[in-house]
Parts: sequence; C-alpha cells; structure tokens
Amino acid sequence: MAPSPRSASPRLQTAMDDVAESLERTLMRLLPDTDLPEAPLFDAMRYGVLDGGKRLRPFMVVEAAKLFNVDSYRARRVAAAIEMVHCYSLVHDDLPAMDNSPLRRGKPSVHIQYDEATAILAGDALLTLAFEVLSDAETHEDPRVRCQLVTELAQAAGGHGMVGGQMLDLIGENEEFDLGTISRLQRMKTGKLMCFACEAGAILGKAGEPQRKALRNFAHDLGLAFQVTDDILDVEADPSETGKPANQDDNAGKSTFVSEMGIQNAKERAEMLVGQAVRHLHVFGGRADILRDLAEYVLSRRM
Amino acid sequence: MAPSPRSASPRLQTAMDDVAESLERTLMRLLPDTDLPEAPLFDAMRYGVLDGGKRLRPFMVVEAAKLFNVDSYRARRVAAAIEMVHCYSLVHDDLPAMDNSPLRRGKPSVHIQYDEATAILAGDALLTLAFEVLSDAETHEDPRVRCQLVTELAQAAGGHGMVGGQMLDLIGENEEFDLGTISRLQRMKTGKLMCFACEAGAILGKAGEPQRKALRNFAHDLGLAFQVTDDILDVEADPSETGKPANQDDNAGKSTFVSEMGIQNAKERAEMLVGQAVRHLHVFGGRADILRDLAEYVLSRRM
Repeated sequence: MAPSPRSASPRLQTAMDDVAESLERTLMRLLPDTDLPEAPLFDAMRYGVLDGGKRLRPFMVVEAAKLFNVDSYRARRVAAAIEMVHCYSLVHDDLPAMDNSPLRRGKPSVHIQYDEATAILAGDALLTLAFEVLSDAETHEDPRVRCQLVTELAQAAGGHGMVGGQMLDLIGENEEFDLGTISRLQRMKTGKLMCFACEAGAILGKAGEPQRKALRNFAHDLGLAFQVTDDILDVEADPSETGKPANQDDNAGKSTFVSEMGIQNAKERAEMLVGQAVRHLHVFGGRADILRDLAEYVLSRRM
Repeated sequence: MAPSPRSASPRLQTAMDDVAESLERTLMRLLPDTDLPEAPLFDAMRYGVLDGGKRLRPFMVVEAAKLFNVDSYRARRVAAAIEMVHCYSLVHDDLPAMDNSPLRRGKPSVHIQYDEATAILAGDALLTLAFEVLSDAETHEDPRVRCQLVTELAQAAGGHGMVGGQMLDLIGENEEFDLGTISRLQRMKTGKLMCFACEAGAILGKAGEPQRKALRNFAHDLGLAFQVTDDILDVEADPSETGKPANQDDNAGKSTFVSEMGIQNAKERAEMLVGQAVRHLHVFGGRADILRDLAEYVLSRRM
C-alpha cells in the first residue's frame, strides 16, 4: 500500500487510507491484468499507477464530492482518471531525456523496470484512458457533466497547464527564474490539476459557482503551499523517508521557492498560504473539516 | 503545403487539397503562435502537426461528414483533433527510444529540430488538446455527441488501439509474428484511428447504425489495404518521393505483409481489400464517389 502520511491527524489518516484503498480497487478494475501479446504495455501502466503515493488528488476529489452528496462510485472514477494523469506525468518526467530519475517512491522508475519505449507508451495510454473513463456514462448520467470534466481535465493537464509547467521546469534548468515565474510554473505544473481535483467534486454535484470557486481557491492556495513545502523537504528531509535523493533541485540548478526566498521565508509563506486556503472553506461550515485537516497536514508532513 | 498525392484522380486531388488547406487554417487557429516563456512547447506542437502529410484521416472525416450534411466547421474541428492524435503518435514514434527516426516527411523529426524532452511534451500536449477540442461545445451542440467522440477517440488511440499496436510493433522487432498477429497489429496501430475518422462523420450527423457500420467497414478494409501498400512501398519506393529511407522495416527485422506473403501476394491482397472496401459504400450511392476514388488511390499511390 501507499506509505502513510507521517504527521496526519488520526481522522485524516483514516480518511486518506480509506480513499487510497478504494481507489486502488477502482484502478485495478479499470486496468485489469491481461495475457494479450501487448501485455507489457498494460503491466507498465499498472506498475506506474498502482500502489503509489499519497493519493492526494483522489482524496481531494472524493472529499469535495462528499460536500455535494455525490455517489462515491462516480467520485472514485473521476479520482482514478485524475490519478492516471498525475501518474502518466511522473512516468514521462522520470525518463532519461527529462528528469532522468531511476527511482520513484523508492522503487525503480517505469523506464528502468521495463524500458524507455514501454514507459513512453504506458504514459500515453494512461493519459488516453483517463479521458475514456471521464466520458463514459458510468461516470455521470448527464453528458454535459462528462463533457465539462473532459474539458477541464484537458485544460488542467495540457500545454497551458501541467505539460506547459513541465516545459517551464526544463527551461528553468538553464535559466534563472524570478519568484513570479516560479509561482506561475508551479501553478501550471501541479496547481491546475489540484484545482481540478477539488472542483471535480463540485462539477459532479452540479454545485453553483460560489461553491466551485471556494474549492478552486482552496486548491490553488493549498497546491502552492504543497509545492513550497516540497522545496523545503527537498533541502531538509531524510532521503530514507521521501524515497528520493536530497537536494535534487539544487543539483539540477533549478530555481525553487527556497533558493529564491530562503528557508525561513519559505516556511512563513507556506503557513500563510495554508491559512488562506482554509479560509476559503468557510462556506461549507463543519462539513469541510477533513479538508481543513488536509491543509494543516501539508505544513507538518515529512515526506 | 502537404505534398500532393501522386496518382490521384484530378477530382480526388482537388478535394484532398481543399481539405488539407482548410485543415491547416483550423489547426493554426487551435494552435496560435505565442510569446509565453513556454513557447518552445507550442512551437514544437506546431512543427509536429502543421504542414504535414497527406491528411488522409482529416479527409475521411470531412468527406464522411458530407454524407450527412454536417456543418463543415464542425467536421474540420474533429478532423483537426484526429490529426493531432495521429501526429503526436508520429512524434513519439520517432523518438530515439522508439523507432529512432531523425527524419519525418523529409524534414528533421521534432526531437531533432527541438530536443527529446520537448518532443515528449509536445506529443503529450497534442494528445491532450485533441480531447479538449472534441469536448468543446463548438464541436457539436449535443453533449451526447461530444462524449461519444471523446470515448471513441480514446478507444481508438489507447492501449487497446493505436498505442497497443505500437507496443506490438516494438515487440515484433525481436519476435516473428504470423499473418494474423501482423493484421491485428496493423488494425490496432493504424486501422482503429482510420475507422474512427470515417465513423466520426456519421457520429456528428447522428447517423443510424447501418450507415455507421458501412463507414466503419469501409475504413477497416481501406486501412488494412493502406498498410499493405505501405509495406510494398517500403520495399519498392524511391526514398526521394517517400521522404524516408527504403527498407526501413526490413532493416529493423520487423515482420511485414511483404516479408510474410511475398510482394505479389501482398499486391493481390491490397487489391482485394480495396474492392471489398468500395462494396461497403453501396448504401450511399453516388454520394460516396470521392471515397471510392480515395480507395482506388490507395492502390496507385507512390508515397
């Protein structure tokens, strides 16, 4: 199973474990074992997406969907689609031509476990499958809702979202970025998909714009806080806990929040962002307590 | 502009040129120039998709859509989405870890013109943009139609379609395939996307199942004929016309229709398939004459 978050409240820990477990079953149903001649492709897809990570985005989808009493099966399908997109981006990011990371979560990356060609194709197929899942009538009976999910995932993940952010990230290896550009990069690379994860619950529940906006803003601030703490952990954390080498960004010559503002300011910025994120949730009252816990956890996490 | 087909009838030639020209304008509108810091990504996407190839799939979409009096703007959007998917697959296929082709249509491949990382990301972003285009209300006012387009594109392009076929193709470099497996490989790698290109016109026109089936069957047989003639051209054609080195497949040790059945049988097979393809069009009477011309052209083409 996915490693448990280290400093989560017992309530948050239980809720995250529950989502991770049910997501795993959903992913396994969507990606069954096969003995077709092209099986290595599906093996690599399963290797890239199963049994991995904190499942932060799926957790956001499922918990946001609960605010609108959305059927949990539907929420899990959308969560699975978003996690496929997140994982495909990791598979491609790890490739030799990109970040050249032999390890992911302490295990060999997909291109090491299989080979580069299979890793490229497995990423492509995961991205494609995400859209197939969202557009299927099992995800929602209203085709308007399904189309909106497809459009918003594509916008969050494409050239003006995640992939554009990865391009910026690569450019940043040879160019010094100012804080504004680093913020924009992170918003594109990770923020937009997190925003979509939170908003997807509201889309499934056909929520009104004020509630959608609250979730979008919550995710925006939390996503940025998450990235700032990622940069802090990159400098401070124990590699045996994070499963990746320390000072990776610094070694790659990348500008990060820490390199640009110093570690103390970065910690203050993360706290400020989390406070701001939590304030966006006031429209949901006590029903959003678990999302508040999640925000607090981002500050205290050690991996 | 795209190179003109060499042995097309004047009527077909004009029709294909018209589609290629209007498609180019549609693609340029969907992928405008940008001066954002991540511009190299969009430059590489434009390089990979603009000014290229015969535009066979877009031609199929547009001509099939005409059978059902579909608005041409909508047909061109769907044609553009399918061409983005076709071109992303070429960009990834050409990568060093895959076919390692430095040339595509006589020009440097995307990873040569830019770099490998940019080529990977440009492919990812083209695939994602295709789904964004299909799910947008500009493509069709009925969200049911848009969802169906998304689902069918994903199925044609994903692990059980094009990407699965590419995986098989890679496996075939080290393994001898029988004719059945080669046919299945080609049906997955190129056939399914061609079937979707023809059927998309019918989906846009909300056509009944008999008409959809006729177009699907037409595309199935034509797609296979196209692949058989591709294998023949790989052996017989003049590299200065095809824009790629001769005997590429043989040099890579791949089983092809020609290697398995000999060139004479392959030519007969292609003729048989084209005859079969044309017979599926009888339900459309004289309105499908241009698709009949297309089928005949597949036999006579020299690039």
